[in-house]
Amino acid sequence: MIELADAQSILERCDALGAISEEPDRLTRRFATPAMRAANAAVAGWMRDAGMTVRQDSIGNLIGRYEAREAGAKTLLLGSHLDTVRDAGKYDGPLGVLVALALVERLHARDVRLPFALEVVAFADEEGLRYHTSYLGSQVLAGTFDPRDLSRRDEDGIAMGEAIRAFGGDPAAIDRDKRDPDTVLAYCEVHIEQGPVLERRELPVGVVSVIMGQSRCDIAFAGQAGHAGTVPMDLRHDALCAAAEFALAVEGLARREAGLVATVGRLAVEPGASNVIPGRAAFSLDVRHLDDVARDTACRDLHNTAEGIGARRGVSVEWRPVQESATVGCSPALGAALSRAIEALGYAALSLPSGAGHDAVVMSTLTPVAMLFVRCKGGVSHNPAEAVAVEDVAVALDVMDTFLANLVDSYNLAVDFR
Amino acid sequence: MIELADAQSILERCDALGAISEEPDRLTRRFATPAMRAANAAVAGWMRDAGMTVRQDSIGNLIGRYEAREAGAKTLLLGSHLDTVRDAGKYDGPLGVLVALALVERLHARDVRLPFALEVVAFADEEGLRYHTSYLGSQVLAGTFDPRDLSRRDEDGIAMGEAIRAFGGDPAAIDRDKRDPDTVLAYCEVHIEQGPVLERRELPVGVVSVIMGQSRCDIAFAGQAGHAGTVPMDLRHDALCAAAEFALAVEGLARREAGLVATVGRLAVEPGASNVIPGRAAFSLDVRHLDDVARDTACRDLHNTAEGIGARRGVSVEWRPVQESATVGCSPALGAALSRAIEALGYAALSLPSGAGHDAVVMSTLTPVAMLFVRCKGGVSHNPAEAVAVEDVAVALDVMDTFLANLVDSYNLAVDFR
Repeated sequence: MIELADAQSILERCDALGAISEEPDRLTRRFATPAMRAANAAVAGWMRDAGMTVRQDSIGNLIGRYEAREAGAKTLLLGSHLDTVRDAGKYDGPLGVLVALALVERLHARDVRLPFALEVVAFADEEGLRYHTSYLGSQVLAGTFDPRDLSRRDEDGIAMGEAIRAFGGDPAAIDRDKRDPDTVLAYCEVHIEQGPVLERRELPVGVVSVIMGQSRCDIAFAGQAGHAGTVPMDLRHDALCAAAEFALAVEGLARREAGLVATVGRLAVEPGASNVIPGRAAFSLDVRHLDDVARDTACRDLHNTAEGIGARRGVSVEWRPVQESATVGCSPALGAALSRAIEALGYAALSLPSGAGHDAVVMSTLTPVAMLFVRCKGGVSHNPAEAVAVEDVAVALDVMDTFLANLVDSYNLAVDFR
Repeated sequence: MIELADAQSILERCDALGAISEEPDRLTRRFATPAMRAANAAVAGWMRDAGMTVRQDSIGNLIGRYEAREAGAKTLLLGSHLDTVRDAGKYDGPLGVLVALALVERLHARDVRLPFALEVVAFADEEGLRYHTSYLGSQVLAGTFDPRDLSRRDEDGIAMGEAIRAFGGDPAAIDRDKRDPDTVLAYCEVHIEQGPVLERRELPVGVVSVIMGQSRCDIAFAGQAGHAGTVPMDLRHDALCAAAEFALAVEGLARREAGLVATVGRLAVEPGASNVIPGRAAFSLDVRHLDDVARDTACRDLHNTAEGIGARRGVSVEWRPVQESATVGCSPALGAALSRAIEALGYAALSLPSGAGHDAVVMSTLTPVAMLFVRCKGGVSHNPAEAVAVEDVAVALDVMDTFLANLVDSYNLAVDFR
């Protein structure tokens, strides 16, 4: 019989954070907003209650530290992010932070110190909603933050540097928050699966093998605006029709190619009046595949498709790659330790890839990473319908508890997780 | 040899009005904005210089009156509109106002009064950009204004009634601005063709036979938002892909059916993030055809198509008709008078339908209407590339001059133009 009280408390905290939003009727928490300040304040209080020392770093990551038994020990980083997409669910991000926090609470309650320090990191920006970036928070720890991003502006014209200062951060200090790899043991993250695999396999948790690479492009078709009532159909260069054809080509290719997912998630039409033929359609493309070569091939195919549509319709094509990340492997040694912990609780240990990107992608450049996925209802995420079962959260917490104990043994034997 | 000085002056005034915009880099003049106030002020000055008495009516239409030879005569209404679409050209609307004004200037210069009064009307809102309406200005004169529209709000949340008051109008007085049909002789409007027919036929001007009926609908597909990296392609209910399929079906139907034009001009995607599958896509549909039955059939076909797409994709369909206008015939007697005037100048008199809607649609419920089209470059309109030749404007002005003389003869013979 599994103990549900701690998991129940985690879900109540997810509810509490889910009520902290920039918008009255739905959950939206962008980077460095008053809503993020309130979320950080709530989590900081819980961290202090769990015996941690708490600080907010130069970009706004909230970090709670639980010291090791002795000085000079390495640090195990645990965590996830507190920012959300627009109209988000309550678990994508916060669940990982709060499971990590609950692990420390259990240690603190028993007055136990480990041979390594623990830090619970609540990253300030993983979704990139405000500045159309990715992993701002973890980039600071990994030392891969690009200072040119500081001049990006949000939809209200506020530069990132300005937003960071208003949030109590310090753009000039970002360099100094890079962690020394020699002082870090590993990075481990608990996260909802955001897909249907665990549900189909009837498993509460699973071990992430790799995180899929992804390509993001900003694309625009520029045709010719004109009067919707007077320009004959055969003389039109309708940018929206070109974009529609492309969106269906994206869908068609991803349906045909096994393992490929591709999405047009954003689309804006100009001038955007009901009686004007669209002169411009600008949109995003997101392409993911486990195999970096297959992803790259799909992107090149789609670029050719866009050029073909443009040529046939007399519409010009702008194609701008904005992000590209290769598929990242999690640490096999850490994955094996997670699997042993799952099996010790009597469950099959399923290893599965992640179609979603995570801070672990960036953290893998600093230190070995591991991820534990928790089953979520219908595989739904980035949606208010996101849901997890309290029993599954309880399993995840116990798995992480056992995993920590395994890590203590390995640490004492000086195992390298790379 | 045609005299170009007056036409040159008209184009210079179009340039002057074209510089009066709400936006720094492009021409956008919405209803009841400071830009419309400035445009009205400029035209009012020219009207006064042409010997007219000037007033602004309850909704903001600018009306210059040039009295008849004797009191108690009827009034011939001439004009067009001064509001624009977003990122507009300089001639759609203003050209008709300024040609009408130039006609009065010629009479004033020769100190001639006609047996009927002339009013040059500069309508306050024909494009409907600010409140997604049509023909607000002419509806007031025709008495078809719907007071419920006063509570519509623009994108800044400003109610129409409030905007009218801020513009110096009076929503409570709109009823009183309805014209008595017995006092009105006819309504005549000069307008750029906004299509390629005159250019192809190498004719400077043409006579409008009918104004095409049109249907406008607001449509939305509601699917399911989800994570772009984790939801497999076969489990998606992507609202944007559904809208893309529909937009191509609209284009395909209009390409197949002779005389049909159909356009998706506006489209908004929610949540609208690159890493989220679109959960909702809301868009406009504009369908036009000379034949009201054919238009209605096309709308029903497209509604069925939308339902089919929705059913197949597991996406719900919202279909809301927002406007429907039947094809309107211009006065054959007035058209014949325009044709005689064109032929008197040595040109072939081509009669052609208008694919664009005009204030004449609404004015036809009040009085007989006529429209003279002026050739425009490439048939382009609703676009900064809109262009007319000074020679064509000179022809239009001379045609209207001769037409006025024909009307004087008919008026003296008490011809009814209905």
